Amino acid sequence: MSDYRIEEVTEEQLAREREVQGGLAATTRELIDAVLRSTVPDDEMIEIRKELAAITERLRASQIPSSHGVTINPEGGTSRNYGNAVVGMRNPIAPPLDITWHEDGLVTTDFHLGAAYEGPPGLVHGGVSALLLDQVAGEAAAAGHKAGMTGTLSLRYERPTPLGELHAEAKVDRVEGIKTIVVGHISDSEGPTVRCEGIFIMPRWARENGEGKPSIFE
Amino acid sequence: MSDYRIEEVTEEQLAREREVQGGLAATTRELIDAVLRSTVPDDEMIEIRKELAAITERLRASQIPSSHGVTINPEGGTSRNYGNAVVGMRNPIAPPLDITWHEDGLVTTDFHLGAAYEGPPGLVHGGVSALLLDQVAGEAAAAGHKAGMTGTLSLRYERPTPLGELHAEAKVDRVEGIKTIVVGHISDSEGPTVRCEGIFIMPRWARENGEGKPSIFE
Repeated sequence: MSDYRIEEVTEEQLAREREVQGGLAATTRELIDAVLRSTVPDDEMIEIRKELAAITERLRASQIPSSHGVTINPEGGTSRNYGNAVVGMRNPIAPPLDITWHEDGLVTTDFHLGAAYEGPPGLVHGGVSALLLDQVAGEAAAAGHKAGMTGTLSLRYERPTPLGELHAEAKVDRVEGIKTIVVGHISDSEGPTVRCEGIFIMPRWARENGEGKPSIFE
Repeated sequence: MSDYRIEEVTEEQLAREREVQGGLAATTRELIDAVLRSTVPDDEMIEIRKELAAITERLRASQIPSSHGVTINPEGGTSRNYGNAVVGMRNPIAPPLDITWHEDGLVTTDFHLGAAYEGPPGLVHGGVSALLLDQVAGEAAAAGHKAGMTGTLSLRYERPTPLGELHAEAKVDRVEGIKTIVVGHISDSEGPTVRCEGIFIMPRWARENGEGKPSIFE
């Protein structure tokens, strides 16, 4: 299942998936937060663990063999990356980010990070900021019609990022051959906390000219 | 609750927490994978969603107010960062990494990443690699007695990282004043896939000399 697949999906089916599969993932995100923060007695935790194991078995009665991959809808070119660790609607680990592509090439997202994304006390894990910025920067590259794989990503932590309501944005800074250089940042209510620069490269299979090794690491 | 706290905890209590709280988180990780990959009928998903919501309420009957922070045990200096997004025993989002500190300063970890950590089809999300390397590199800095906050982190994606069994390691490359420069990588069975260099700085509160702004961004 792990592949780019072309699959025609109706608007009705998409809406149903959002409601049922997306709803199940959303509730699981709440459960993750509760599992992490709960202080109920040990006996209750042990009992709940048994119940969750039984539910897991019921869900596994029918499942995809490995991971979701990405499905591209020929109608309108929308894609479904339901399993994506940052934006995947079906992925309980994803916050998930809802990223808006603006006409001028800027991509933006507003989101909330709770206890599950903690590193230092009360603060967003530095690696979580990197995780989210990789996705946001990658989408900025794609919005500039320069979709690609991450070549390099550099992060500069200017000050701590508090858990809570946050914003991220990115845009293409410049294009150099097969390299698209994107800049972005995460900010809280007082301004940017982490800045990034990413170099995205067109995968070999997506380029007309398949010759040579991408020279992004020189 | 989000703070560094000194708290004496017995070995017995730690073992009990590992079993009960750690066990609940481990089962929740299985559930996350099942929620993501399940193809059971809509009716069953809707029913399961209701059951998960009810379990979430039971867990919330008693909970910490915000996030876990870090608890430091005065006996032996062990710390509990149960909520950490990468290594937190109680955090269902964390794989979790079990990182070994070796005597020569190298830190290493072997781990498995499943469907929930996907980016491109069948591959680890580039941002997940960044997330994990940030933690591994930070621990390498700490193992070198130079614990600190991430100042900068630079990632170089040399080839795709497949989902599955993986390894990561890092070590201090050099120390320059308050900056500790760490290098590391993630590898699959065929060698390194992503390399990183991180600069970690001693937080102001942890330094003897509280003057001046950390000049890591020059």
